[in-house]
Amino acid sequence: MASAVSSHPPLSVALVGATGLVGETILEVLAERDFPVGRLLPLASRRSSGRTLRFRGEELAVREAEPAAFEGVDLVFFAATGSLSKELAPEAVTRGAVVIDKSNTWRMDERVPLVIPEINPAALEEHEGIIACPNCTTIGVAMALEPLRRAAGLRRVVVTTLQATSGAGREASEELEAQLAALARNEEPVATVFPSPIAHNVLPLCERFDPDDDGYSTEEMKLLHETRKILGEPDLDVSMTCVRVPVPVGHSASLLVECERALSPEKARRALDAFPGVRVVDDCARNVFPTPRDVAGGDEVLVGRVRRDLTSERLWLWQVVDNLRKGAATNGVQIAETLIERGLL
Amino acid sequence: MASAVSSHPPLSVALVGATGLVGETILEVLAERDFPVGRLLPLASRRSSGRTLRFRGEELAVREAEPAAFEGVDLVFFAATGSLSKELAPEAVTRGAVVIDKSNTWRMDERVPLVIPEINPAALEEHEGIIACPNCTTIGVAMALEPLRRAAGLRRVVVTTLQATSGAGREASEELEAQLAALARNEEPVATVFPSPIAHNVLPLCERFDPDDDGYSTEEMKLLHETRKILGEPDLDVSMTCVRVPVPVGHSASLLVECERALSPEKARRALDAFPGVRVVDDCARNVFPTPRDVAGGDEVLVGRVRRDLTSERLWLWQVVDNLRKGAATNGVQIAETLIERGLL
Repeated sequence: MASAVSSHPPLSVALVGATGLVGETILEVLAERDFPVGRLLPLASRRSSGRTLRFRGEELAVREAEPAAFEGVDLVFFAATGSLSKELAPEAVTRGAVVIDKSNTWRMDERVPLVIPEINPAALEEHEGIIACPNCTTIGVAMALEPLRRAAGLRRVVVTTLQATSGAGREASEELEAQLAALARNEEPVATVFPSPIAHNVLPLCERFDPDDDGYSTEEMKLLHETRKILGEPDLDVSMTCVRVPVPVGHSASLLVECERALSPEKARRALDAFPGVRVVDDCARNVFPTPRDVAGGDEVLVGRVRRDLTSERLWLWQVVDNLRKGAATNGVQIAETLIERGLL
Repeated sequence: MASAVSSHPPLSVALVGATGLVGETILEVLAERDFPVGRLLPLASRRSSGRTLRFRGEELAVREAEPAAFEGVDLVFFAATGSLSKELAPEAVTRGAVVIDKSNTWRMDERVPLVIPEINPAALEEHEGIIACPNCTTIGVAMALEPLRRAAGLRRVVVTTLQATSGAGREASEELEAQLAALARNEEPVATVFPSPIAHNVLPLCERFDPDDDGYSTEEMKLLHETRKILGEPDLDVSMTCVRVPVPVGHSASLLVECERALSPEKARRALDAFPGVRVVDDCARNVFPTPRDVAGGDEVLVGRVRRDLTSERLWLWQVVDNLRKGAATNGVQIAETLIERGLL
């Protein structure tokens, strides 16, 4: 993969949301993967503009994200709020840039490909300027499901997620840290980002409840709709509860999967391990299973505890992903690399 | 309930495992509920004997648990290791005591009632000296299932648990604390009780893997077999993954329940709220749902996030229980109270 990408002429790249956790991780991943960045333009909301950040050893000033900033830009990563993306992504496209958007704004738009490069790279061929990067939780779950889908078809999935605080942004991560420090001093933890303390606790709510969703969180609805779109299975039964846990980085998911055709745990493991970007970490005899700490800082989706349900042919899996890297930044950069490989950028 | 119990002549009560977390909580609960304790005899393994503890303001020496200690004792709570319970519970019964055992040793013995007093108190009538208290995880899950079973029958249950460190004992709780302190100092957390660090992490393993269980943990197998026995549903489909989370107290469970007959979320909430020991805490519009911090120190099983599955008639629930109280100590003391009420003690 690296050759077509690394020999590509340098691109002018803008990054909206450069000061956030995902933005910061995109900068790391671009540098690590030697992505052909010529000029890098860090942008942010007015509140965060004026700061500086480092990219490949160089200090860069963060400018305010506004339409004129996209003049002459080839590629824009949006890693900011949905409203900024809604307003500015079309402006960037109008000026000739390709947009890879991490927000929820464009994902379910029929004109917008929603892409995990290992799963549905061909969807990029149809892009009209904006490409959506799935939600961090969806990416981990879809990466674990696709090898099983290809091997034996999918009928039904039941999933409970255990999501890291960094999935809710920098302030959420800082809130966990501050609450743990307060508890260590025997003080009451103060919750402002999350509706209840997250330290020493778990919350059966990720993001927020939408009155239209009849008791579901917005995060849960994303998991249903995005998974269907990415896997190309518009009627797939996905049942889910999304839970926030006091973990800084690394989303986990406990998955019960019903396939269309028989699939033994052993064959499932082989299918998973053979899939690019997925690795099986599964040896009960030696207490080996994947945990959030194991994926933090890495790009692989790890899967373990693959076993047959005790009362049916269904399969249990345990899946873990670094929500900031493969769940966000790395997947976005991989989309850009795939665009280059396919001559689309 | 209190009257038959409080007017009962004082009993000679022994507590094996008095120095552990559950033992300590049993002492609290006995005092709180004014259980008719005449003499209290705190016992422990040789290693822990010789310490002292306080009960109702009195300082008591912890003696070594050995057969002769049970002479003249009416009631023994076992809150110790399974091996101590296996060896000593029959010795206590031989000497005329009734045993309420919290270990896993006797639960699946056909001669031993496995009791949650709100669910199957009549099973106590058949006791032959030993009565088993279910696993802390099973108690929470069964308390959430029984009201639905009575209202509409149960066909299938899929559950992922998120279990507190105190469920693995005092050393496990201390390990979480020590690891969080190490991380706060930017040091590597050291894991000795758990196979990997539990701080800032989740582990898809509770207790241990048994080579006979084909990829399942002992905790998961308990949840299947105990739930079936308590609910009197020997063929109930229960599918589960048990996960350890960095929470000191309070086990949570994410449950997807398929009933035999139609049951709306509203009717499920009513059935749950009407059941003794269960309270519904469920108001998405105001971000109200139960969390481990909400149950810590209390005896109620809290249930929230009751909603219909997006793709079927099944119901999702979120259930939380204080694993040391209703999950262990309180349930044990309630068993003793029920024995008194039924003239069995």
